[in-house]
Amino acid sequence: MNKKATLFTSLSPALLDLSDVGNTVVVIIDVFRATTTIAAALYNGAKRVIPVAEVEECKRLGNKISGSITAGEREGKVIEGLQYGNSPTEYPREFIEGKTLVLTTTNGTKLLHKALAKGCAEVVTGSFVNLSAVCNYLIKENKNVILGCSGWKDRFNLEDTLFAGAVIDKIEEHFTIHDDSSLMAKELYNLHRNDLYNFIKQTTHWHRLAAYGLHKDLEYCVSTDVANVLPLYKNGELIVG
Amino acid sequence: MNKKATLFTSLSPALLDLSDVGNTVVVIIDVFRATTTIAAALYNGAKRVIPVAEVEECKRLGNKISGSITAGEREGKVIEGLQYGNSPTEYPREFIEGKTLVLTTTNGTKLLHKALAKGCAEVVTGSFVNLSAVCNYLIKENKNVILGCSGWKDRFNLEDTLFAGAVIDKIEEHFTIHDDSSLMAKELYNLHRNDLYNFIKQTTHWHRLAAYGLHKDLEYCVSTDVANVLPLYKNGELIVG
Repeated sequence: MNKKATLFTSLSPALLDLSDVGNTVVVIIDVFRATTTIAAALYNGAKRVIPVAEVEECKRLGNKISGSITAGEREGKVIEGLQYGNSPTEYPREFIEGKTLVLTTTNGTKLLHKALAKGCAEVVTGSFVNLSAVCNYLIKENKNVILGCSGWKDRFNLEDTLFAGAVIDKIEEHFTIHDDSSLMAKELYNLHRNDLYNFIKQTTHWHRLAAYGLHKDLEYCVSTDVANVLPLYKNGELIVG
Repeated sequence: MNKKATLFTSLSPALLDLSDVGNTVVVIIDVFRATTTIAAALYNGAKRVIPVAEVEECKRLGNKISGSITAGEREGKVIEGLQYGNSPTEYPREFIEGKTLVLTTTNGTKLLHKALAKGCAEVVTGSFVNLSAVCNYLIKENKNVILGCSGWKDRFNLEDTLFAGAVIDKIEEHFTIHDDSSLMAKELYNLHRNDLYNFIKQTTHWHRLAAYGLHKDLEYCVSTDVANVLPLYKNGELIVG
Protein backbone atom coordinates (compact mmCIF):
# COMPACT_ATOMS: atom_id res chain seq x y z
CA MET A 1 0.00 0.00 0.00
CA ASN A 2 1.32 3.43 -0.87
CA LYS A 3 1.85 5.81 1.99
CA LYS A 4 -0.79 8.52 1.98
CA ALA A 5 0.18 12.16 1.65
CA THR A 6 -0.35 14.30 4.75
CA LEU A 7 -2.83 17.11 5.28
CA PHE A 8 -2.39 19.84 7.90
CA THR A 9 -4.43 22.94 8.73
CA SER A 10 -2.68 26.22 9.57
CA LEU A 11 -5.10 28.47 11.48
CA SER A 12 -3.21 31.73 10.94
CA PRO A 13 -0.33 33.07 8.80
CA ALA A 14 1.57 33.43 12.11
CA LEU A 15 1.38 29.65 12.56
CA LEU A 16 2.60 28.71 9.07
CA ASP A 17 6.19 28.91 10.35
CA LEU A 18 5.55 25.71 12.30
CA SER A 19 5.09 23.71 9.11
CA ASP A 20 7.51 22.31 6.59
CA VAL A 21 6.05 23.34 3.24
CA GLY A 22 8.57 21.54 1.02
CA ASN A 23 6.89 19.41 -1.68
CA THR A 24 3.56 20.70 -0.39
CA VAL A 25 0.50 22.27 -2.01
CA VAL A 26 -0.60 25.26 0.06
CA VAL A 27 -4.27 26.21 -0.27
CA ILE A 28 -4.69 29.93 0.49
CA ILE A 29 -8.09 30.45 2.14
CA ASP A 30 -9.57 33.94 2.53
CA VAL A 31 -13.31 33.34 2.33
CA PHE A 32 -14.33 36.95 3.17
CA ARG A 33 -13.56 37.87 0.37
CA ALA A 34 -10.28 37.67 -1.54
CA THR A 35 -10.23 34.01 -2.56
CA THR A 36 -13.95 34.12 -3.32
CA THR A 37 -13.46 37.11 -5.61
CA ILE A 38 -10.47 35.44 -7.30
CA ALA A 39 -12.52 32.32 -8.08
CA ALA A 40 -15.49 34.40 -9.28
CA ALA A 41 -13.34 36.50 -11.64
CA LEU A 42 -11.60 33.47 -13.15
CA TYR A 43 -14.86 31.52 -13.40
CA ASN A 44 -16.34 34.44 -15.34
CA GLY A 45 -13.50 34.41 -17.82
CA ALA A 46 -10.82 36.71 -16.43
CA LYS A 47 -7.53 35.93 -18.18
CA ARG A 48 -5.67 36.07 -14.90
CA VAL A 49 -5.70 37.60 -11.41
CA ILE A 50 -2.54 39.25 -10.09
CA PRO A 51 -2.64 39.43 -6.28
CA VAL A 52 -0.54 42.24 -4.82
CA ALA A 53 -0.01 43.48 -1.29
CA GLU A 54 0.64 47.17 -1.93
CA VAL A 55 -1.71 49.73 -3.45
CA GLU A 56 1.14 51.43 -5.33
CA GLU A 57 2.14 48.14 -6.96
CA CYS A 58 -1.49 47.64 -7.96
CA LYS A 59 -1.57 51.04 -9.68
CA ARG A 60 1.79 50.43 -11.35
CA LEU A 61 0.67 47.10 -12.83
CA GLY A 62 -2.67 48.60 -13.84
CA ASN A 63 -0.84 51.26 -15.87
CA LYS A 64 1.54 48.73 -17.40
CA ILE A 65 -0.89 45.97 -18.43
CA SER A 66 -3.42 46.72 -21.15
CA GLY A 67 -6.91 45.36 -20.53
CA SER A 68 -6.36 45.37 -16.79
CA ILE A 69 -8.61 46.35 -13.93
CA THR A 70 -7.24 47.50 -10.58
CA ALA A 71 -9.21 46.63 -7.51
CA GLY A 72 -9.06 46.85 -3.77
CA GLU A 73 -10.96 48.06 -0.72
CA ARG A 74 -10.25 49.41 2.69
CA GLU A 75 -13.09 49.59 5.18
CA GLY A 76 -15.69 48.71 2.58
CA LYS A 77 -14.75 51.47 0.08
CA VAL A 78 -12.78 51.33 -3.17
CA ILE A 79 -9.23 52.52 -2.48
CA GLU A 80 -8.48 55.94 -3.94
CA GLY A 81 -6.76 55.59 -7.30
CA LEU A 82 -8.08 52.06 -7.93
CA GLN A 83 -11.07 51.30 -10.12
CA TYR A 84 -13.11 48.61 -8.41
CA GLY A 85 -13.74 46.96 -5.06
CA ASN A 86 -13.18 43.54 -3.57
CA SER A 87 -16.69 42.23 -4.12
CA PRO A 88 -17.08 38.91 -5.97
CA THR A 89 -20.35 40.17 -7.43
CA GLU A 90 -18.61 43.06 -9.20
CA TYR A 91 -17.06 40.74 -11.78
CA PRO A 92 -19.74 39.26 -14.07
CA ARG A 93 -18.67 37.68 -17.35
CA GLU A 94 -19.72 40.60 -19.55
CA PHE A 95 -17.35 42.82 -17.60
CA ILE A 96 -14.32 40.68 -16.68
CA GLU A 97 -13.97 38.23 -19.59
CA GLY A 98 -10.50 38.33 -21.15
CA LYS A 99 -9.23 40.96 -18.71
CA THR A 100 -6.48 40.96 -16.09
CA LEU A 101 -7.63 41.69 -12.55
CA VAL A 102 -4.93 43.29 -10.40
CA LEU A 103 -6.23 42.81 -6.85
CA THR A 104 -4.79 44.20 -3.64
CA THR A 105 -5.56 42.04 -0.65
CA THR A 106 -3.96 42.03 2.77
CA ASN A 107 -4.43 38.81 4.70
CA GLY A 108 -4.53 36.39 1.76
CA THR A 109 -1.60 37.92 -0.10
CA LYS A 110 0.51 37.97 3.05
CA LEU A 111 -0.03 34.25 3.51
CA LEU A 112 0.61 33.52 -0.17
CA HIS A 113 3.96 35.31 -0.13
CA LYS A 114 4.92 33.60 3.10
CA ALA A 115 4.18 30.17 1.62
CA LEU A 116 6.22 30.96 -1.50
CA ALA A 117 9.12 32.37 0.54
CA LYS A 118 9.21 29.15 2.55
CA GLY A 119 9.52 27.18 -0.70
CA CYS A 120 6.21 25.37 -1.10
CA ALA A 121 5.70 23.34 -4.27
CA GLU A 122 2.42 24.89 -5.39
CA VAL A 123 -0.12 27.49 -4.35
CA VAL A 124 -3.82 27.35 -5.15
CA THR A 125 -6.65 29.42 -3.67
CA GLY A 126 -9.87 28.11 -2.20
CA SER A 127 -13.24 29.22 -0.96
CA PHE A 128 -16.71 27.69 -0.73
CA VAL A 129 -17.49 28.87 -4.27
CA ASN A 130 -14.81 26.52 -5.66
CA LEU A 131 -14.77 23.80 -3.01
CA SER A 132 -15.08 20.84 -5.39
CA ALA A 133 -12.43 22.13 -7.80
CA VAL A 134 -9.96 22.46 -4.91
CA CYS A 135 -10.78 19.01 -3.53
CA ASN A 136 -10.51 17.29 -6.91
CA TYR A 137 -7.15 18.93 -7.54
CA LEU A 138 -5.72 17.93 -4.15
CA ILE A 139 -6.77 14.31 -4.65
CA LYS A 140 -5.33 14.23 -8.16
CA GLU A 141 -2.00 15.82 -7.17
CA ASN A 142 -1.53 13.46 -4.23
CA LYS A 143 1.07 15.74 -2.64
CA ASN A 144 1.20 16.84 0.98
CA VAL A 145 -1.33 19.60 1.66
CA ILE A 146 -1.47 22.59 3.98
CA LEU A 147 -4.84 24.29 4.29
CA GLY A 148 -3.74 27.85 5.02
CA CYS A 149 -6.29 30.07 6.72
CA SER A 150 -5.55 33.74 6.09
CA GLY A 151 -7.34 34.95 9.18
CA TRP A 152 -7.54 38.65 9.96
CA LYS A 153 -4.28 40.36 10.87
CA ASP A 154 -2.94 36.98 11.99
CA ARG A 155 -6.00 36.33 14.13
CA PHE A 156 -7.91 33.06 13.91
CA ASN A 157 -11.18 33.36 12.03
CA LEU A 158 -14.13 31.05 11.71
CA GLU A 159 -15.01 31.36 8.02
CA ASP A 160 -11.59 30.21 6.79
CA THR A 161 -11.55 27.42 9.37
CA LEU A 162 -15.00 26.24 8.28
CA PHE A 163 -13.80 26.03 4.69
CA ALA A 164 -10.79 23.99 5.81
CA GLY A 165 -13.28 21.71 7.56
CA ALA A 166 -15.34 21.39 4.37
CA VAL A 167 -12.26 20.33 2.42
CA ILE A 168 -11.27 17.79 5.08
CA ASP A 169 -14.79 16.40 5.15
CA LYS A 170 -14.60 15.71 1.41
CA ILE A 171 -11.06 14.37 1.03
CA GLU A 172 -9.93 12.96 4.38
CA GLU A 173 -9.89 9.34 3.22
CA HIS A 174 -7.09 10.20 0.78
CA PHE A 175 -4.76 11.75 3.36
CA THR A 176 -3.07 11.10 6.67
CA ILE A 177 -4.36 13.76 9.08
CA HIS A 178 -2.91 13.99 12.58
CA ASP A 179 -3.32 17.54 13.80
CA ASP A 180 -5.79 19.03 16.24
CA SER A 181 -6.45 22.02 13.95
CA SER A 182 -7.83 19.76 11.23
CA LEU A 183 -9.90 17.78 13.72
CA MET A 184 -11.37 20.99 15.13
CA ALA A 185 -12.08 22.41 11.67
CA LYS A 186 -13.89 19.27 10.59
CA GLU A 187 -15.93 19.08 13.81
CA LEU A 188 -16.97 22.70 13.46
CA TYR A 189 -17.91 22.31 9.81
CA ASN A 190 -19.97 19.21 10.48
CA LEU A 191 -21.74 20.98 13.31
CA HIS A 192 -22.78 23.85 11.04
CA ARG A 193 -22.78 22.45 7.51
CA ASN A 194 -26.54 22.75 7.28
CA ASP A 195 -26.77 26.25 8.74
CA LEU A 196 -23.56 27.78 7.44
CA TYR A 197 -25.15 31.04 6.45
CA ASN A 198 -26.74 31.58 9.85
CA PHE A 199 -23.73 30.46 11.83
CA ILE A 200 -21.36 32.66 9.92
CA LYS A 201 -23.44 35.68 10.90
CA GLN A 202 -21.94 35.28 14.36
CA THR A 203 -18.36 35.75 13.19
CA THR A 204 -16.40 38.94 13.83
CA HIS A 205 -15.66 39.38 10.13
CA TRP A 206 -19.32 39.20 9.24
CA HIS A 207 -20.08 42.03 11.62
CA ARG A 208 -17.25 44.10 10.16
CA LEU A 209 -18.43 43.60 6.57
CA ALA A 210 -22.17 43.68 7.23
CA ALA A 211 -21.65 47.15 8.71
CA TYR A 212 -20.62 48.21 5.19
CA GLY A 213 -23.85 46.80 3.73
CA LEU A 214 -22.19 43.75 2.17
CA HIS A 215 -24.77 41.10 3.09
CA LYS A 216 -25.18 39.97 -0.52
CA ASP A 217 -21.44 39.47 -0.85
CA LEU A 218 -21.31 37.44 2.31
CA GLU A 219 -24.14 35.19 1.22
CA TYR A 220 -22.32 34.53 -2.06
CA CYS A 221 -19.09 33.78 -0.17
CA VAL A 222 -20.67 30.80 1.59
CA SER A 223 -22.36 29.38 -1.53
CA THR A 224 -20.85 26.07 -2.57
CA ASP A 225 -19.40 25.50 -6.05
CA VAL A 226 -20.98 28.51 -7.75
CA ALA A 227 -17.61 29.52 -9.30
CA ASN A 228 -16.03 26.10 -9.50
CA VAL A 229 -12.60 26.67 -11.06
CA LEU A 230 -9.14 26.10 -9.63
CA PRO A 231 -7.01 29.26 -9.30
CA LEU A 232 -3.39 28.10 -9.62
CA TYR A 233 -0.46 30.44 -8.90
CA LYS A 234 2.22 30.59 -11.58
CA ASN A 235 4.85 33.27 -12.14
CA GLY A 236 3.14 35.91 -10.06
CA GLU A 237 -0.39 35.37 -11.30
CA LEU A 238 -3.39 33.18 -10.67
CA ILE A 239 -4.78 31.37 -13.71
CA VAL A 240 -7.30 28.56 -14.15
CA GLY A 241 -5.41 25.34 -13.36
CA MET B 1 -24.80 50.30 33.32
CA ASN B 2 -21.11 49.59 33.81
CA LYS B 3 -19.17 48.52 30.78
CA LYS B 4 -18.32 44.85 30.94
CA ALA B 5 -14.72 43.69 30.93
CA THR B 6 -13.58 41.86 27.78
CA LEU B 7 -12.62 38.23 27.38
CA PHE B 8 -10.42 36.93 24.56
CA THR B 9 -9.02 33.47 23.78
CA SER B 10 -5.44 33.10 22.55
CA LEU B 11 -5.08 29.72 20.81
CA SER B 12 -1.27 29.56 20.90
CA PRO B 13 1.63 31.36 22.61
CA ALA B 14 2.57 32.54 19.09
CA LEU B 15 -0.73 34.42 18.90
CA LEU B 16 -0.45 36.17 22.28
CA ASP B 17 1.49 38.99 20.59
CA LEU B 18 -1.75 40.08 18.92
CA SER B 19 -3.29 41.00 22.25
CA ASP B 20 -2.86 43.94 24.55
CA VAL B 21 -2.40 42.37 27.98
CA GLY B 22 -2.30 45.59 30.01
CA ASN B 23 -4.67 45.52 33.01
CA THR B 24 -5.54 41.96 32.04
CA VAL B 25 -5.69 38.66 33.89
CA VAL B 26 -4.02 35.96 31.79
CA VAL B 27 -5.15 32.40 32.49
CA ILE B 28 -2.37 29.98 31.56
CA ILE B 29 -3.95 26.75 30.29
CA ASP B 30 -1.88 23.58 29.85
CA VAL B 31 -4.37 20.79 30.52
CA PHE B 32 -1.99 17.91 29.60
CA ARG B 33 -0.49 18.22 32.20
CA ALA B 34 1.32 21.22 33.74
CA THR B 35 -1.60 23.32 34.96
CA THR B 36 -3.41 20.18 36.16
CA THR B 37 -0.37 19.11 38.18
CA ILE B 38 0.03 22.63 39.60
CA ALA B 39 -3.60 22.67 40.81
CA ALA B 40 -3.30 19.14 42.23
CA ALA B 41 -0.13 19.94 44.18
CA LEU B 42 -1.54 23.15 45.67
CA TYR B 43 -4.88 21.49 46.41
CA ASN B 44 -3.02 18.80 48.32
CA GLY B 45 -1.24 21.36 50.46
CA ALA B 46 1.97 22.24 48.61
CA LYS B 47 3.31 25.51 50.04
CA ARG B 48 4.02 26.78 46.54
CA VAL B 49 4.88 25.70 43.00
CA ILE B 50 7.79 27.35 41.21
CA PRO B 51 7.46 26.93 37.44
CA VAL B 52 10.78 27.05 35.57
CA ALA B 53 11.68 26.58 31.93
CA GLU B 54 15.18 25.14 32.27
CA VAL B 55 16.23 21.88 33.88
CA GLU B 56 19.41 23.46 35.32
CA GLU B 57 17.38 26.19 37.01
CA CYS B 58 15.12 23.50 38.45
CA LYS B 59 18.12 21.69 39.96
CA ARG B 60 19.62 24.93 41.26
CA LEU B 61 16.40 25.92 43.07
CA GLY B 62 16.00 22.36 44.36
CA ASN B 63 19.42 22.56 46.00
CA LYS B 64 18.77 26.02 47.40
CA ILE B 65 15.29 25.59 48.87
CA SER B 66 14.85 23.24 51.81
CA GLY B 67 11.76 21.03 51.69
CA SER B 68 11.64 21.24 47.93
CA ILE B 69 10.91 18.64 45.29
CA THR B 70 12.23 18.96 41.74
CA ALA B 71 10.07 17.59 38.97
CA GLY B 72 9.90 17.35 35.23
CA GLU B 73 9.53 14.90 32.37
CA ARG B 74 10.66 14.53 28.83
CA GLU B 75 8.96 11.91 26.68
CA GLY B 76 7.17 10.35 29.62
CA LYS B 77 10.26 9.81 31.81
CA VAL B 78 11.58 11.74 34.82
CA ILE B 79 14.39 14.02 33.64
CA GLU B 80 17.83 12.88 34.80
CA GLY B 81 18.85 14.72 37.93
CA LEU B 82 15.27 15.57 38.95
CA GLN B 83 13.27 13.64 41.51
CA TYR B 84 9.73 13.29 40.21
CA GLY B 85 7.63 13.45 37.06
CA ASN B 86 4.90 15.71 35.74
CA SER B 87 1.99 13.52 36.77
CA PRO B 88 -0.77 15.12 38.85
CA THR B 89 -1.32 11.79 40.61
CA GLU B 90 2.22 11.78 41.98
CA TYR B 91 1.43 14.50 44.49
CA PRO B 92 -0.96 13.22 47.18
CA ARG B 93 -1.33 15.22 50.38
CA GLU B 94 0.80 12.88 52.50
CA PHE B 95 3.69 13.52 50.16
CA ILE B 96 3.44 17.15 49.03
CA GLU B 97 1.91 18.97 52.01
CA GLY B 98 4.03 21.92 53.14
CA LYS B 99 6.63 21.38 50.44
CA THR B 100 7.80 23.50 47.51
CA LEU B 101 7.39 21.92 44.09
CA VAL B 102 9.92 23.18 41.53
CA LEU B 103 8.42 22.12 38.22
CA THR B 104 9.97 22.35 34.77
CA THR B 105 7.41 22.71 32.04
CA THR B 106 7.88 23.83 28.46
CA ASN B 107 4.71 25.08 26.79
CA GLY B 108 2.96 26.49 29.87
CA THR B 109 6.05 28.23 31.27
CA LYS B 110 6.85 29.76 27.90
CA LEU B 111 3.40 31.31 27.75
CA LEU B 112 3.56 32.47 31.36
CA HIS B 113 6.86 34.29 30.81
CA LYS B 114 5.56 35.83 27.59
CA ALA B 115 2.48 37.18 29.38
CA LEU B 116 4.59 38.64 32.18
CA ALA B 117 7.09 40.17 29.74
CA LYS B 118 4.21 41.87 27.95
CA GLY B 119 3.12 43.42 31.24
CA CYS B 120 -0.13 41.67 32.14
CA ALA B 121 -1.73 42.57 35.46
CA GLU B 122 -2.07 39.05 36.85
CA VAL B 123 -1.37 35.44 35.96
CA VAL B 124 -3.39 32.48 37.19
CA THR B 125 -3.36 28.89 35.94
CA GLY B 126 -6.35 26.83 34.93
CA SER B 127 -7.39 23.31 34.02
CA PHE B 128 -10.56 21.24 34.30
CA VAL B 129 -9.57 20.19 37.82
CA ASN B 130 -9.94 23.78 39.04
CA LEU B 131 -12.50 25.14 36.57
CA SER B 132 -14.86 26.65 39.16
CA ALA B 133 -12.08 28.31 41.14
CA VAL B 134 -10.80 30.00 37.98
CA CYS B 135 -14.28 31.11 36.93
CA ASN B 136 -15.18 32.49 40.35
CA TYR B 137 -11.94 34.45 40.47
CA LEU B 138 -12.40 35.96 37.02
CA ILE B 139 -15.93 37.10 37.87
CA LYS B 140 -14.80 38.57 41.17
CA GLU B 141 -11.79 40.43 39.71
CA ASN B 142 -13.87 41.92 36.89
CA LYS B 143 -10.75 42.75 34.86
CA ASN B 144 -10.19 42.02 31.19
CA VAL B 145 -9.32 38.35 30.64
CA ILE B 146 -7.16 36.45 28.18
CA LEU B 147 -7.59 32.69 28.17
CA GLY B 148 -4.13 31.62 27.09
CA CYS B 149 -3.83 28.15 25.55
CA SER B 150 -0.29 26.82 25.87
CA GLY B 151 -0.61 24.46 22.92
CA TRP B 152 2.27 22.22 21.95
CA LYS B 153 5.37 23.94 20.58
CA ASP B 154 3.14 26.84 19.50
CA ARG B 155 0.68 24.49 17.78
CA PHE B 156 -3.05 24.71 18.43
CA ASN B 157 -4.33 21.95 20.65
CA LEU B 158 -7.81 20.76 21.46
CA GLU B 159 -7.59 20.09 25.19
CA ASP B 160 -6.56 23.65 26.09
CA THR B 161 -9.17 25.06 23.70
CA LEU B 162 -11.88 22.88 25.26
CA PHE B 163 -11.00 24.22 28.68
CA ALA B 164 -11.21 27.79 27.36
CA GLY B 165 -14.67 26.84 26.05
CA ALA B 166 -15.67 25.48 29.47
CA VAL B 167 -14.67 28.77 31.13
CA ILE B 168 -16.57 30.82 28.53
CA ASP B 169 -19.63 28.63 28.95
CA LYS B 170 -19.67 29.40 32.69
CA ILE B 171 -18.85 33.12 32.74
CA GLU B 172 -19.81 34.62 29.38
CA GLU B 173 -22.66 36.71 30.73
CA HIS B 174 -20.17 38.74 32.77
CA PHE B 175 -17.91 39.67 29.85
CA THR B 176 -17.93 41.23 26.40
CA ILE B 177 -16.70 38.53 24.01
CA HIS B 178 -16.10 39.40 20.36
CA ASP B 179 -13.51 37.03 18.97
CA ASP B 180 -13.88 34.00 16.74
CA SER B 181 -11.48 31.97 18.90
CA SER B 182 -13.80 32.22 21.90
CA LEU B 183 -16.84 31.42 19.80
CA MET B 184 -15.13 28.35 18.37
CA ALA B 185 -13.91 27.19 21.80
CA LYS B 186 -17.39 27.47 23.27
CA GLU B 187 -19.01 25.67 20.33
CA LEU B 188 -16.51 22.84 20.56
CA TYR B 189 -16.91 22.51 24.32
CA ASN B 190 -20.69 22.43 24.09
CA LEU B 191 -20.50 19.80 21.38
CA HIS B 192 -18.39 17.51 23.57
CA ARG B 193 -19.12 18.50 27.17
CA ASN B 194 -20.89 15.21 27.81
CA ASP B 195 -18.27 13.01 26.18
CA LEU B 196 -15.10 14.94 26.99
CA TYR B 197 -13.12 11.89 27.97
CA ASN B 198 -13.92 10.05 24.74
CA PHE B 199 -13.45 13.05 22.48
CA ILE B 200 -10.13 13.97 23.97
CA LYS B 201 -8.84 10.51 23.06
CA GLN B 202 -8.77 11.75 19.47
CA THR B 203 -6.31 14.57 20.20
CA THR B 204 -2.68 14.41 19.13
CA HIS B 205 -1.48 15.03 22.68
CA TRP B 206 -3.50 12.14 24.00
CA HIS B 207 -1.81 9.80 21.57
CA ARG B 208 1.59 11.12 22.57
CA LEU B 209 0.96 10.65 26.29
CA ALA B 210 -1.06 7.44 26.06
CA ALA B 211 1.95 5.88 24.33
CA TYR B 212 3.79 6.40 27.63
CA GLY B 213 1.05 4.57 29.54
CA LEU B 214 -0.43 7.70 31.07
CA HIS B 215 -4.14 6.93 30.64
CA LYS B 216 -4.88 7.43 34.33
CA ASP B 217 -3.25 10.86 34.24
CA LEU B 218 -5.25 11.89 31.21
CA GLU B 219 -8.51 10.82 32.78
CA TYR B 220 -7.70 12.90 35.84
CA CYS B 221 -6.81 15.90 33.65
CA VAL B 222 -10.35 16.10 32.27
CA SER B 223 -12.10 15.64 35.65
CA THR B 224 -13.92 18.79 36.72
CA ASP B 225 -13.20 20.53 40.03
CA VAL B 226 -11.34 17.68 41.72
CA ALA B 227 -8.52 20.04 42.79
CA ASN B 228 -10.49 23.23 43.02
CA VAL B 229 -7.99 25.88 44.12
CA LEU B 230 -6.78 29.00 42.34
CA PRO B 231 -3.04 29.04 41.56
CA LEU B 232 -2.02 32.72 41.53
CA TYR B 233 1.42 33.82 40.31
CA LYS B 234 3.32 36.16 42.67
CA ASN B 235 7.03 36.92 42.73
CA GLY B 236 8.05 33.92 40.70
CA GLU B 237 5.86 31.35 42.39
CA LEU B 238 2.33 30.01 42.27
CA ILE B 239 0.44 30.04 45.54
CA VAL B 240 -3.21 29.48 46.44
CA GLY B 241 -4.99 32.77 45.63
